[in-house]
Amino acid sequence: MTTSFHPPERCLMGPGPSDVNPRILEALSRPTIGHLDPAFIAMMDEVKSLLQYAFQTRNELTIPVSAPGSAGMETVFVNLLEPGDKVVICANGVFGGRMKENAERCGAVAVMVEDEWGATVDLDKVEQTLTENPDAKALAFVHAETSTGARSDAESLAALAAKFGCLVIVDAVTSLGGIELKVDDWGIDAIYSGTQKCLSCVPGLSPVSFSERAVEAIKARKSKVQSWFLDLNLVMGYWGAEAKRSYHHTAPVNSLYALHESLVILKEEGLEDAWARHALNHQAFAAGIEKLGLSFVVAEEYRLPQLNAVGFPDGVSDAAVRAALLEEFNLEIGAGLGALAGKVWRIGLMGYASNQTNVLNCLTALGAVLADQGMDCDAAAAVAAARAVYAGN
Amino acid sequence: MTTSFHPPERCLMGPGPSDVNPRILEALSRPTIGHLDPAFIAMMDEVKSLLQYAFQTRNELTIPVSAPGSAGMETVFVNLLEPGDKVVICANGVFGGRMKENAERCGAVAVMVEDEWGATVDLDKVEQTLTENPDAKALAFVHAETSTGARSDAESLAALAAKFGCLVIVDAVTSLGGIELKVDDWGIDAIYSGTQKCLSCVPGLSPVSFSERAVEAIKARKSKVQSWFLDLNLVMGYWGAEAKRSYHHTAPVNSLYALHESLVILKEEGLEDAWARHALNHQAFAAGIEKLGLSFVVAEEYRLPQLNAVGFPDGVSDAAVRAALLEEFNLEIGAGLGALAGKVWRIGLMGYASNQTNVLNCLTALGAVLADQGMDCDAAAAVAAARAVYAGN
Repeated sequence: MTTSFHPPERCLMGPGPSDVNPRILEALSRPTIGHLDPAFIAMMDEVKSLLQYAFQTRNELTIPVSAPGSAGMETVFVNLLEPGDKVVICANGVFGGRMKENAERCGAVAVMVEDEWGATVDLDKVEQTLTENPDAKALAFVHAETSTGARSDAESLAALAAKFGCLVIVDAVTSLGGIELKVDDWGIDAIYSGTQKCLSCVPGLSPVSFSERAVEAIKARKSKVQSWFLDLNLVMGYWGAEAKRSYHHTAPVNSLYALHESLVILKEEGLEDAWARHALNHQAFAAGIEKLGLSFVVAEEYRLPQLNAVGFPDGVSDAAVRAALLEEFNLEIGAGLGALAGKVWRIGLMGYASNQTNVLNCLTALGAVLADQGMDCDAAAAVAAARAVYAGN
Repeated sequence: MTTSFHPPERCLMGPGPSDVNPRILEALSRPTIGHLDPAFIAMMDEVKSLLQYAFQTRNELTIPVSAPGSAGMETVFVNLLEPGDKVVICANGVFGGRMKENAERCGAVAVMVEDEWGATVDLDKVEQTLTENPDAKALAFVHAETSTGARSDAESLAALAAKFGCLVIVDAVTSLGGIELKVDDWGIDAIYSGTQKCLSCVPGLSPVSFSERAVEAIKARKSKVQSWFLDLNLVMGYWGAEAKRSYHHTAPVNSLYALHESLVILKEEGLEDAWARHALNHQAFAAGIEKLGLSFVVAEEYRLPQLNAVGFPDGVSDAAVRAALLEEFNLEIGAGLGALAGKVWRIGLMGYASNQTNVLNCLTALGAVLADQGMDCDAAAAVAAARAVYAGN
């Protein structure tokens, strides 16, 4: 007979899910109420306004999609693109490629701007491509590439798109709550994120936000949105302001309790303080990583503090290191993905998991396990280097 | 400053979500682990095999979709249908209509078999329509219409489809765990359900199952599935047997803990016992409802035990009754939907909420509130009638 499942207690320092704040787990387990209960509707309004704070936007259409970040991406593409539309997509990792898949499945034409994995999106190439494609409806790019740890300059990319009259589509799955992000100031038209990264919430929801211009584009569509579940014309009937809160689908009630709590926590800390905390823990971690003799994939100025892609020397067994960390230290770090598979580890310092204890424990564990692999590692020196960063702060 | 949300404690006797077993809420709040953690992968295998039990199938492709039941419906349609395909859809309530929307958004042609709201699907009309449409690829119908409380004869409908060589698509959102359902014995090719009905789990996931014949149809597609997120060719890479468990999207880890626990509870009770419990509580409830002077929308032989559509006399205020039940008794019942809006209440006795206490409390509360509305109700007699059913069992 199968019995109840009791997960091991891990420290989650991979590319997400990241450690969930116990306050959020507690909120998650509160009694379920109906998705049309007045008390629930009032909570939904709070979630919307907390999300507006997190995204730094006044966009009315700022809601969580009832499915993971990949569905948030799909929501943006299926609602904004129609067959024959052209979209310029920047790819410097896995998720730019996934955008292409999404756009093409909408019958749109994807014009790609490719950069190396680990590089930032090249603004000159984007400008060149937009110049060559004056009929492009949108420019789409990933703010924080989870597969490589590279940050792209969302503000400048959005400004470029504006110059060419394009809608601006941004993947902020890993950036929201971890690094500076200003939807209104930067002129972003459509953005999606995930709950399981820097919000430290459980996986399963995707916060999205759409500008008025994007909403007009959705309302002016000639064809129906190909997805019934993700059709914002229908979803707005449930989440919208003017709406009767009419039933569309059953909202994931308890997951929304959790998202609400995670956003309350973010607001208590303050966005700027959360960004500063991510930056500081990254600096301390990076000082230790270098002392261990490991290297970063991404050039310093483009590194994401919340996702560290760390290369390791030939001869070190990727799988053995990750297995030892998991089995002996209950510590999860991420494997490389796509072009970086087998070449890097992805070490997350996201949200609740971005803290001094995790930084120091991870350096200690990595040092011990890499020594087993024959590397000449001084874990104590790495920890000292990280502590010095904290002490100097 | 927005603070933590603490929901009221409701008794959920609407069309879903239904009351969640506290064991499931506790499982939901266990520490999050990675979606590629070996411990999690092992739990996924248990979820698959427990779902096979719940569906009574040996289908290898039996998994939960990472989104609510509506996305389960969409998963079935976008994977099985290609542009130009013809599908016969039976509509006797809201969800048959939603199937049509889904089919048409896939570019498929929907041939409708319409029945009255509250009626069961008419087998003769279906046979006639299949005879007239020998090129139909699939027959789709709703086993348990949540909008009306009517059961259709899934076994006979599936047999009819087989006679005409059609794939059989079944909506089992409200039937799974509440009434007899045998995927393999009945020859169902594609089926989807929800977690928030008779499984008494939190909303947000959709269990689905596909026969080998359906999987072959998916693998033989000429066009790509229009949804990247719901493309089973990709999802199978994460959930599949032979698979490397390759990353597709981040699974909703904690919701899957909850589903696992709900399925363990179902297996502990046993499917047949769960069906019998739903039947008994319905009989007791129905005896009380009739004593209150209310009537059922659905003819007795087609009534769903887990979803009671109850009509009320002219002059009774739908909204006032539901508001009083919610505010004074913390009891949620459902409003009518679509053609039955303002004409019926939908009173659920689903899963954990299908119990004697709820039946008796609901009759008491309804009796009190209906008396306020000027009805000549004897709540005590209704409770006595229900108790007599239990006593005679």
